[in-house]
Amino acid sequence: MLIQAYGAQAGDKPLGPMQISRRSPGAHDVQIDIAFCGVCHSDLHQVRAEWAGTQFPCVPGHEIVGRVTAVGAHVSDFSIGDLVGVGCIVDSCRHCNDCDAGLENYCDGLIGTYNFPTPDAPGHTLGGYSQQIVVHEHYVLRIRHPEEQLAAVAPLLCAGITTYSPLRHWKAGPGKKIGVVGIGGLGHMGIKLAHAMGAYVVALTTSESKRVEAKALGANEVVVSRNAEEMALHAKSFDLILNTVAAPHDLDALLVLLKRDGTMALVGAPATPHPSPNVFNLIMKRRSITGSMIGGILETQEMLDFCAKHGIVADIEIVRVDEINNAYERMLKGDVKYRFVIDNATLSA
Amino acid sequence: MLIQAYGAQAGDKPLGPMQISRRSPGAHDVQIDIAFCGVCHSDLHQVRAEWAGTQFPCVPGHEIVGRVTAVGAHVSDFSIGDLVGVGCIVDSCRHCNDCDAGLENYCDGLIGTYNFPTPDAPGHTLGGYSQQIVVHEHYVLRIRHPEEQLAAVAPLLCAGITTYSPLRHWKAGPGKKIGVVGIGGLGHMGIKLAHAMGAYVVALTTSESKRVEAKALGANEVVVSRNAEEMALHAKSFDLILNTVAAPHDLDALLVLLKRDGTMALVGAPATPHPSPNVFNLIMKRRSITGSMIGGILETQEMLDFCAKHGIVADIEIVRVDEINNAYERMLKGDVKYRFVIDNATLSA
Repeated sequence: MLIQAYGAQAGDKPLGPMQISRRSPGAHDVQIDIAFCGVCHSDLHQVRAEWAGTQFPCVPGHEIVGRVTAVGAHVSDFSIGDLVGVGCIVDSCRHCNDCDAGLENYCDGLIGTYNFPTPDAPGHTLGGYSQQIVVHEHYVLRIRHPEEQLAAVAPLLCAGITTYSPLRHWKAGPGKKIGVVGIGGLGHMGIKLAHAMGAYVVALTTSESKRVEAKALGANEVVVSRNAEEMALHAKSFDLILNTVAAPHDLDALLVLLKRDGTMALVGAPATPHPSPNVFNLIMKRRSITGSMIGGILETQEMLDFCAKHGIVADIEIVRVDEINNAYERMLKGDVKYRFVIDNATLSA
Repeated sequence: MLIQAYGAQAGDKPLGPMQISRRSPGAHDVQIDIAFCGVCHSDLHQVRAEWAGTQFPCVPGHEIVGRVTAVGAHVSDFSIGDLVGVGCIVDSCRHCNDCDAGLENYCDGLIGTYNFPTPDAPGHTLGGYSQQIVVHEHYVLRIRHPEEQLAAVAPLLCAGITTYSPLRHWKAGPGKKIGVVGIGGLGHMGIKLAHAMGAYVVALTTSESKRVEAKALGANEVVVSRNAEEMALHAKSFDLILNTVAAPHDLDALLVLLKRDGTMALVGAPATPHPSPNVFNLIMKRRSITGSMIGGILETQEMLDFCAKHGIVADIEIVRVDEINNAYERMLKGDVKYRFVIDNATLSA
């Protein structure tokens, strides 16, 4: 079946309308009419071929929400009309240690929602800037938020789980002091989630102008990281620093804020390396630098349910699909609070 | 009381004989006649003023073993004649979170065995290249090895605990695959200890010539890290890599050997930074880079008792104190298997 989509034919071309095909639902498949799709920084990097290996035509989008329109014969957990989501993962091997542990995100056979190999035409997966998607039931998430919040739920499927998973893994909660570095698509979710988990949350930003908004998101304190005196007040005090900044920056200034056995978890990957961190800052207090990538399917469902229970959604700006090229330019300038979401109804306009 | 010692008057001067004073034992002090003192790489860096802040005269040495010759009125755990050791720590605040947790090694008030401030003359601590030392009882360790092993026990006080602590903290043991990078003073202890803990131990070395000796130390396998094919066989398989190499080197080649949630613990600090590690190698498998510094007093006693039980000592070469300058030169060339130990009886010769 041919459907409308929006993508690029080459890395140096803007995105534009195109027709793509989706497979008919197999026995374990769920067919979804996409209502909204969030716009992630990865979309831009991938579609512009800034990372290695982009396959064209490229249709980005892995923050997908919509309604089930058909289910395969063996699908029992989903029915036509259900509100569902699809995140960054549409397949994995389902039998390795990682998959068995519910950590499909670390499976070597992970199939991402776009730009990964598939038997379906054209040979690589095509994402959520499209009217419809067909996904194996294991990778479909249930959405329990009220329908009027649907657009703002979309970014939870990537920005939400990418911050939720490390916060849970490194045990954010009451009695813990958590830093969130960078207040953008990921960081604003990190603040909301860490706050809802009961942690003491400090937002770290380079922008004096973000003080008020960071507090409104749930930060107990805001530290402007260019202010050395302000930073010094927090030396050796953090249990966990969730670092969402993808641009290369000085990690040492943050490492010294960790207490003994503290962890800095990186969820942004810079195109060129960060300056090399000082090993003494690790050794002297047994501190760790680590990374985390999205989250597993069970954990993504847990995150969605946690957000529904706590009334958490992303702060978004809805755009028409034909505004996407401009939205990318604005995203590069940080001119969005905090996530663009495509209204996929505009694909048929 | 004046005693004989060996140290340097300036960073560009060789070590030579000198007289120093020790305080009379206070109520909680233990006075120790030093029988042997191990020679650590830090001794060389510090006495040559290669690290910031060396105070002169400088008497190095923090791998101290000997016999108790006097105890203060309130000392109940040690008696004259006991075999004891002193490691890198001779004092700490004893009331912070770190001290309360038995992790005096991470206390901000840590007083190292040499080159740290003290009320005693000359105002900074003087180490184990000397006939005698006086130490608060809390920082004195009991040695349960047979006396004939005493010289080879000395390096356990730094090289032993520096490798034992991270192996324990990151749970080396049966079912775990542990890499030990670098086969020198620290690394040879890491192999022996990880093996005795029941882990599967792989030694990683740049030297083909070290294959046989690494196996003799207890390694189940030896990988020559310059051999890319050999390295590839171990991709994504290690739970923990204990990295003892202080020279700057490529961390990425090692990070990719870690399985999901694996940890690389650095115990060597390079004078110039390692090349900056690739953040993707952390993010893709939730891997960590961390550091560890010596160990706490309780854990040091546990390590000594573990070694006594398992018959573990360091592989050493005993030198006269007047051979120390030459020993440093040989140490810089890696020409020692694996630790020099000074026979402190030669101080009075």
